[in-house]
Amino acid sequence: MKLSEVAKAVNGVPEGDAGIELHAMASLSEAREGDVSFLANPKYAAQMKDTKASAVLVAKDYEGETPAALIRVDDPNKAFAALAPIFGPKPVIREPGIHATAVIGEGVTLGKDLYIGPYTVIEDGASIGDGTVIEGQVFIAQNVSIGKNCHLYPQVNIRESCVLGDRVILHAGVKIGTDGYGYTVEIGAQGPVITKVPQVGIVEIGNDVEIGSNTCVDRARFGRTRVGDCVKIDNLVQIGHNVQIAPFVGIIAQAGIAGSAKIETGALIWSQAGVSGHLTVHERAQVAPQAGVKEDVPEGEYVAGTPAIPKRKFAEGLLLPRLVEKLKKKVADLEAKVKALESR
Amino acid sequence: MKLSEVAKAVNGVPEGDAGIELHAMASLSEAREGDVSFLANPKYAAQMKDTKASAVLVAKDYEGETPAALIRVDDPNKAFAALAPIFGPKPVIREPGIHATAVIGEGVTLGKDLYIGPYTVIEDGASIGDGTVIEGQVFIAQNVSIGKNCHLYPQVNIRESCVLGDRVILHAGVKIGTDGYGYTVEIGAQGPVITKVPQVGIVEIGNDVEIGSNTCVDRARFGRTRVGDCVKIDNLVQIGHNVQIAPFVGIIAQAGIAGSAKIETGALIWSQAGVSGHLTVHERAQVAPQAGVKEDVPEGEYVAGTPAIPKRKFAEGLLLPRLVEKLKKKVADLEAKVKALESR
Amino acid sequence: MKLSEVAKAVNGVPEGDAGIELHAMASLSEAREGDVSFLANPKYAAQMKDTKASAVLVAKDYEGETPAALIRVDDPNKAFAALAPIFGPKPVIREPGIHATAVIGEGVTLGKDLYIGPYTVIEDGASIGDGTVIEGQVFIAQNVSIGKNCHLYPQVNIRESCVLGDRVILHAGVKIGTDGYGYTVEIGAQGPVITKVPQVGIVEIGNDVEIGSNTCVDRARFGRTRVGDCVKIDNLVQIGHNVQIAPFVGIIAQAGIAGSAKIETGALIWSQAGVSGHLTVHERAQVAPQAGVKEDVPEGEYVAGTPAIPKRKFAEGLLLPRLVEKLKKKVADLEAKVKALESR
Repeated sequence: MKLSEVAKAVNGVPEGDAGIELHAMASLSEAREGDVSFLANPKYAAQMKDTKASAVLVAKDYEGETPAALIRVDDPNKAFAALAPIFGPKPVIREPGIHATAVIGEGVTLGKDLYIGPYTVIEDGASIGDGTVIEGQVFIAQNVSIGKNCHLYPQVNIRESCVLGDRVILHAGVKIGTDGYGYTVEIGAQGPVITKVPQVGIVEIGNDVEIGSNTCVDRARFGRTRVGDCVKIDNLVQIGHNVQIAPFVGIIAQAGIAGSAKIETGALIWSQAGVSGHLTVHERAQVAPQAGVKEDVPEGEYVAGTPAIPKRKFAEGLLLPRLVEKLKKKVADLEAKVKALESR
Repeated sequence: MKLSEVAKAVNGVPEGDAGIELHAMASLSEAREGDVSFLANPKYAAQMKDTKASAVLVAKDYEGETPAALIRVDDPNKAFAALAPIFGPKPVIREPGIHATAVIGEGVTLGKDLYIGPYTVIEDGASIGDGTVIEGQVFIAQNVSIGKNCHLYPQVNIRESCVLGDRVILHAGVKIGTDGYGYTVEIGAQGPVITKVPQVGIVEIGNDVEIGSNTCVDRARFGRTRVGDCVKIDNLVQIGHNVQIAPFVGIIAQAGIAGSAKIETGALIWSQAGVSGHLTVHERAQVAPQAGVKEDVPEGEYVAGTPAIPKRKFAEGLLLPRLVEKLKKKVADLEAKVKALESR
Repeated sequence: MKLSEVAKAVNGVPEGDAGIELHAMASLSEAREGDVSFLANPKYAAQMKDTKASAVLVAKDYEGETPAALIRVDDPNKAFAALAPIFGPKPVIREPGIHATAVIGEGVTLGKDLYIGPYTVIEDGASIGDGTVIEGQVFIAQNVSIGKNCHLYPQVNIRESCVLGDRVILHAGVKIGTDGYGYTVEIGAQGPVITKVPQVGIVEIGNDVEIGSNTCVDRARFGRTRVGDCVKIDNLVQIGHNVQIAPFVGIIAQAGIAGSAKIETGALIWSQAGVSGHLTVHERAQVAPQAGVKEDVPEGEYVAGTPAIPKRKFAEGLLLPRLVEKLKKKVADLEAKVKALESR
């Protein structure tokens, strides 16, 4: 698309060679030739000077140097988003229908306007709500219940009897309802005897939950592992058995929550953090990336480090080397003075 | 089920409204209305006061306040476990049989009483022992050997020529026999030349091993990556090429063992810990959650931190800020005293 | 194979019982009875004394004690590699062809000499280059473009419109093009309202890239998440949306790169390390295992710790306990001296 055409599409005014060809969208710093970019936040204005974008959407009153052509618009943020249907990937639309290769068991309840993709297996007794999209190569085990308007991407597995609410998104490779890690160890006459503890609970996921690729949520020992409404979980996260996650919690990539921990409403667990079992991260608390929580986190507290401590204390700890260096000098100074006094 | 019926099922004596309806099982702290719970460990007695459970299994002589109805039994722990077949998910039974859609290659040896699920692929030359269950959507590559009474969940992949013992459980998404991370780097005239090192070994897994969802075990450069008998590995764990894991080792979620490391009998690697390559974690040693092991861990030692040090030393390190604070005060005190002495 | 036969195969001279049976290959420390091993690096010479290998390939002039039989060769390293076709797993050869069960959509462009395995799905508008191998149970969504001579292992998923170069290897379970983790949060009258931010970009992967099992690469918010030529990524790694990875970068197992971070040419991100969003790891910098990068890493710098600091400073920090111990003694000493002075 030519600069002039893109300008027209966003109701903007082009500035520069109207014949420039634009192929894709990118941020100012990521752009290369042929890309259209945008400047909405003044924080990024400095990137205008050496952006590789061929054209940039800017505010009407923008002033500044740039090698790129400009398109002046009322709201660069909105205008850029409006370009997504043009330059972004063609959206995938799943028309209702069940692929001929899908294997549907006995006693399965299927809602209206479902999509079920190729090579997906839905076992006996499962039920799927209206409007839900289950892509290809998904495995839904016996007696699973899935609500309305959910979207399950390929290679998801949901083990028997687990329950999903409405509008749940499970990305590719998510595993729901795996046995929790539980064994008893006895020392017998011939050495240790390790016995698997039966994991006879389920996973119960609320409404409006989104779970990232290859994340695992273990079923409960008894009862249910719970993921509350509006919880958003990133990729490669581990949720142990019997964990209780309240609504509106966020858990970022590669974090892990050990068995029976509770994460209360509005809490945020950042990437690669770990929460030990049988403790509580209270409402609106945050756990810093890579932190290791070993005791309850109070309401609203932000903890960091391993073991995790309040952020302020953690920051103080980082100053320790400088503090010790200063003390070292003071002590050397004192030693000299004391020596002088002693020899008086 | 009514309270009275549940009481009857566990040979207990109901106390409270016999008509209460019970639907599910949960621990005291996780329970909600309609749940039956139990009190076995006196440690949790305090939770009786505000449990949301509708009924609780308690010992015959239990005394204490609770809003819940009670069922008095001889052994609350056992009685609760006995309720799992009633309230827990209906168990999945895989009757022997091979699904019509399973693709079985040439020269495959199949034992008796096998189950092979829909859309599973078993390639040429593989052999599967008696009584093994291979769920749907599993991919077993050429010449893999699997023992008796194993259970492979959906979306497992086992690469060519790997070997599994008897009674091995691989949960959904486990990948066995991926190429290890190995390259040679040469700086050529036109820049670096990176060459893949062929990974021509296998993975050999002993008897009674259980491996959690989405865990990866890399094949050896030469020879075999080994996972010994009775090893229990949790979800999302990384086992590098040529790692040697002795029997009775436990590895908790998201931990990683780098290439050619040895983990000796009875060692425990806790969650999110990392063990560097080419070193040994000796018998019954433990590596704390998130610890980073950079040198051999002696027999029976418990190490923590990055780099990992003995737990006692690690704990001392945590006291450092307080120690420095004290020193700071002492030094200030000394400075004042020395100043006073100097001005005498 | 007998010792004498193995010796013949590598043009070597056997020393010991010519009738010894050899079954497999292993390093000196990993070997057991029936294994053939090798000694190339003198660093491992001490392992000769108690190796369990039945035979060892050694240099012509090797001298030393060992319970193993010997095979003297010109170059033990090369000779050992030459044994891989004999003792290693039978290589898997994928003859060109499309399995009858593969589901190929409309408007798909297929190159020459392709292999497409059982139960693989390739959706409308996708294109696959010459000589590419796509194993069974792979899911390629609409309009994906894959180059020549790639190899995709089972259970890989590539979401719509993503682009792969030539000679790309994706190991089992890799997920390319998952939605990035992006939401807006507003506090409404009835509590928080969380809205998913549309992720309408793609992932673009260069030539000669290899990505390990169960690794996830998120699609861009707009534009593209980029993985440059010759990038090598290990298992269970997380690459966030809009991340830009330059050519010749290495990322080791379980590391995570947050949204919009840039990793420049030749940088190395070690295992379980984390890089925060919107920052740059500059050329040839290295991030130590488990380090947590919170600000830009300068060219060629090696950083460690959380938050990550230059390795030298990190090493100094490790000496802090000893330094404080020394200071404590000095302060006690000074206190005694000052007391003595005061009482003069």
